[in-house]
Amino acid sequence: MTELNVDLQNKCNVGDEADVEKDEDLVTPWDVVSKSETGVDYEKLISRFGCSRIDSDLIARMAKLINGPVHHLLKRQIFFSHRDLNKILDRYEQGKPFFLYTGRGPSSKALHLGHLIPFMFTKWLQGTFNVPLVIQLTDDEKYFWKNIPLEETIELARENAKDIIACGFDIKKTFIFNNWNFVGSCPSFYQNIGRILRLVNNNQVRSIFGIGKDADCIGKTFFPACQAAPSFSSSFPFIFDGKKDVPCLIPCAIDQDPYFRLTRDVAPRLGFPKPSLIHSSFFPALQGVKSKMSASETNSAIFLTDTPKQIKDKINKYAFSGGGTTVEEHQAKGGNCDIDISYQYLTFFLDDDEKLEEIRKSYSAGTLLTGHLKKELITILQKLVAEHQERRKQVTDEMLDEFMKLRKLDF
Amino acid sequence: MTELNVDLQNKCNVGDEADVEKDEDLVTPWDVVSKSETGVDYEKLISRFGCSRIDSDLIARMAKLINGPVHHLLKRQIFFSHRDLNKILDRYEQGKPFFLYTGRGPSSKALHLGHLIPFMFTKWLQGTFNVPLVIQLTDDEKYFWKNIPLEETIELARENAKDIIACGFDIKKTFIFNNWNFVGSCPSFYQNIGRILRLVNNNQVRSIFGIGKDADCIGKTFFPACQAAPSFSSSFPFIFDGKKDVPCLIPCAIDQDPYFRLTRDVAPRLGFPKPSLIHSSFFPALQGVKSKMSASETNSAIFLTDTPKQIKDKINKYAFSGGGTTVEEHQAKGGNCDIDISYQYLTFFLDDDEKLEEIRKSYSAGTLLTGHLKKELITILQKLVAEHQERRKQVTDEMLDEFMKLRKLDF
Repeated sequence: MTELNVDLQNKCNVGDEADVEKDEDLVTPWDVVSKSETGVDYEKLISRFGCSRIDSDLIARMAKLINGPVHHLLKRQIFFSHRDLNKILDRYEQGKPFFLYTGRGPSSKALHLGHLIPFMFTKWLQGTFNVPLVIQLTDDEKYFWKNIPLEETIELARENAKDIIACGFDIKKTFIFNNWNFVGSCPSFYQNIGRILRLVNNNQVRSIFGIGKDADCIGKTFFPACQAAPSFSSSFPFIFDGKKDVPCLIPCAIDQDPYFRLTRDVAPRLGFPKPSLIHSSFFPALQGVKSKMSASETNSAIFLTDTPKQIKDKINKYAFSGGGTTVEEHQAKGGNCDIDISYQYLTFFLDDDEKLEEIRKSYSAGTLLTGHLKKELITILQKLVAEHQERRKQVTDEMLDEFMKLRKLDF
Repeated sequence: MTELNVDLQNKCNVGDEADVEKDEDLVTPWDVVSKSETGVDYEKLISRFGCSRIDSDLIARMAKLINGPVHHLLKRQIFFSHRDLNKILDRYEQGKPFFLYTGRGPSSKALHLGHLIPFMFTKWLQGTFNVPLVIQLTDDEKYFWKNIPLEETIELARENAKDIIACGFDIKKTFIFNNWNFVGSCPSFYQNIGRILRLVNNNQVRSIFGIGKDADCIGKTFFPACQAAPSFSSSFPFIFDGKKDVPCLIPCAIDQDPYFRLTRDVAPRLGFPKPSLIHSSFFPALQGVKSKMSASETNSAIFLTDTPKQIKDKINKYAFSGGGTTVEEHQAKGGNCDIDISYQYLTFFLDDDEKLEEIRKSYSAGTLLTGHLKKELITILQKLVAEHQERRKQVTDEMLDEFMKLRKLDF
C-alpha cells in the first residue's frame, strides 16, 4: 500500500446500516445512531476511520504556540480527533499561511444549537491564528438529497449564512459561498471539481458513502467532489492569487470525515496539499446521547429562533436526565453526568471550568438536583440565544452580499 | 407508459459492444462500427433509437417555408432522421423564436472533413432561419474520457473554436463556449445541470450510455448532464432574458442521440420544452463506409490542416474504391457508388446535383474510371481545405474571445 492510499485504508462501508458491524455505531454524513446508552464510542470511531486522538501533548503544543489557553471545546475534547493537525501547527510556527474551511448543509431555515458548535470553534480559530476562512453552504447537496425546490435551497443557504455571520466572523477574512452560485461564478472551482471527478470512481463513492446505487440520482454521485474542492487553495484564485500550495484546516463534526478521506486521497495526485482536519463529537438530542440533535425532529432540538419560554419548556420537558427517579434516590446514588443531557450541554456552552467542575461534583454526589441543573442550563441558553438573535437582526442583505462577494481577504 | 417516457422506450443498451445484438451496428457517442459492408443500417437505427425518417413531405414543407431549395445535405438525406422537426417548423411558421444548439468534443487539434459536416449544415440553418446558435465545446468530456491534461483540453477547445468560426458563423448570432470556463461563469447553466443531475439515476446512465461501471470515474456519470443542459434556453439568461420556453433544434450526428433522448426525458419534468433534433449519418473513413472518419487514425482522415499534396496522396492511396480491380473489369461491370468512398465524399461536398448525378451514372456504367473520379474529388477538397485555411488565418484571439463572451445575441 502506497502512502497515497493511507487515508482510504480504513474506508469501512459507512454509508449503509447493513454495512456496519452489529456492535458498531452508524456514523455517516446523513445518519448518526449509537448502539450504546452512553452514545457513540469515539475511541472505536477513531480506529475505524483511521484518524488520531487529540492528546494532551497536542493541546499543550497549541497552547504554547498561541501563548494562551485553548478553547474549552478543545480542552474538554469535544473536538477530540484530528488528521495532520501538527502539520498546520508546524506551518504556523514557521509563519507560513494556511486557511480554514468549514460549511453547512442548509436543509432548514432555523439553525439549532448543534449547528453553532463548529462555527463557535471556527471563529475562535480564525481570531487566534489570524487566517482566512471559507464557508461552503451545500445547497446543491440538499437539493439532491431532499425534496426541496432548487430556488428554496438557495434561499435557505442565504438565511443560514445570516446566522453564521451572526456568530461574529471577521468580514475582512471570511468568504461565504453557496454552491449553486459559486460553482457558476468561478471557473477554477469548477475545474478543481472536475479534477476530482476524474480521479474518483463509482466503486470508491459506493464504498466510502454507500451512494451510487441504481435508483440514486447521479447528483449524489457527483456531490462529494463539490465538498472536496474547497480544500484546495487554487479553488479560490481571488483569495490566494492562484497559489496551489496553501493547505487548509477543516473543523467539522466527525460524520463529515468520509468526504475528506476522499479529498486526502486525491490531493497528492493533483499536486495539492492534503487538508488537515479537526473533528468534533456530536451535539446530542434533548432525548439523550444516543442520537444527535436534528432540525427535522423539532422536539429534539433547541433552535436559535426559540423564545426564552420555549427553551425553558423544552429543557424541562425533554432534556434526558441522568439523575435518580426520586429525590431520595438521587441523593442516595447521585446523578450520571455521562448521560445527563443538561450536564452535557453545559460542557459545550459553559466556558467556566471551575463552575462546571463544581456542578459535576455536586450532581454526581447527588447534592445538586436535576431541576437545579436544568435551571442553570436554561439561564445560559436563554442568554446565548437572545444574544444571537440580537446579532442576527443586525445582519442585512447588503452585509450578506459582501461576505459572499468574490474578493481578496486580509491575511 | 406515460408520454414522458416515450423517448426512453427505445433505450437499447448502446454503450457496450456486448450489449448490442449480433447483427446490429454498434453506434455510441464513442464508437461506430458497422456489421455490414455497406455501412451502418440507418433504417434499423431509426427504429432502434425511436426517431423518424426525414421524408420528402417534410423536405417539401421546409422548402416551401423558406421559399427556396433546402441544403444538399438534407436533400440527399445525409441529414436523414429527426425528432420533432415539425414542431420547430410550426414555430417558424408562427414567427416564434427558436435557437440552434450544436457542439464538438475537442480531442484533437486539427479537425477533419467529417467534423465540418454539422457545422456546414448548422451555418446554413442559422442563415436560413435567422436564429441564435450556441456551440458547446465539451473539453470536460475529453478530460474525463481521454488522458489529456485539463489545461490542454481547454487549449484544444480554443483551437477547434477557431476552425468553427472559420466556417463563417455570424458573430452577432453565435455564442461559443467551452464547459471548463462556461460552467464556472454562469450560475443558471450550473443550476440546470444540477436539475438534470437530480432527475437522472445511475440505472438510466448505465442503460443509455453503458457508463457508470465500478472502475469508471464519476466524471463520466456526471457529464451527460453537461451536454443536456444547453438544450434549455434558461441556461443562457444573457441571450434569452431568462425565458425558459424557447425550444432548440440540435443538428448532430446520430451517435449523439442518446444524450438527447435523456434530455427529452427530463425536459417536461423541469417545465422546459423538449429539444428537436436533426441527425446526420456518419462521414466515412477513407478505408470504407464500415467505420467513420476518426482523428485518432491519421490515415483514415483528411484534416483541415492537410496540404494539397497530402490530400491528393491520401485519396489516391487510401480512398476505398467501389470500382473494378482492372480497367477491363470496371468497364464491364461498372463501379459501386454505395461503397466507393470518393463518390460518397462527393455527395457531402459537391453541391451541384446535375454534375453529381452525371458522375454517378458514368461511374456505375463503368465509363468513368476510379482515377478520374478521385481526381474530381481531389480538386474539390483541395479547394475547400485551402479556402478554409485562408479563413482560419483571419480568426484572431480577439475574435475568438468575442464569440465566447457572454452577451446578448441579435435575433
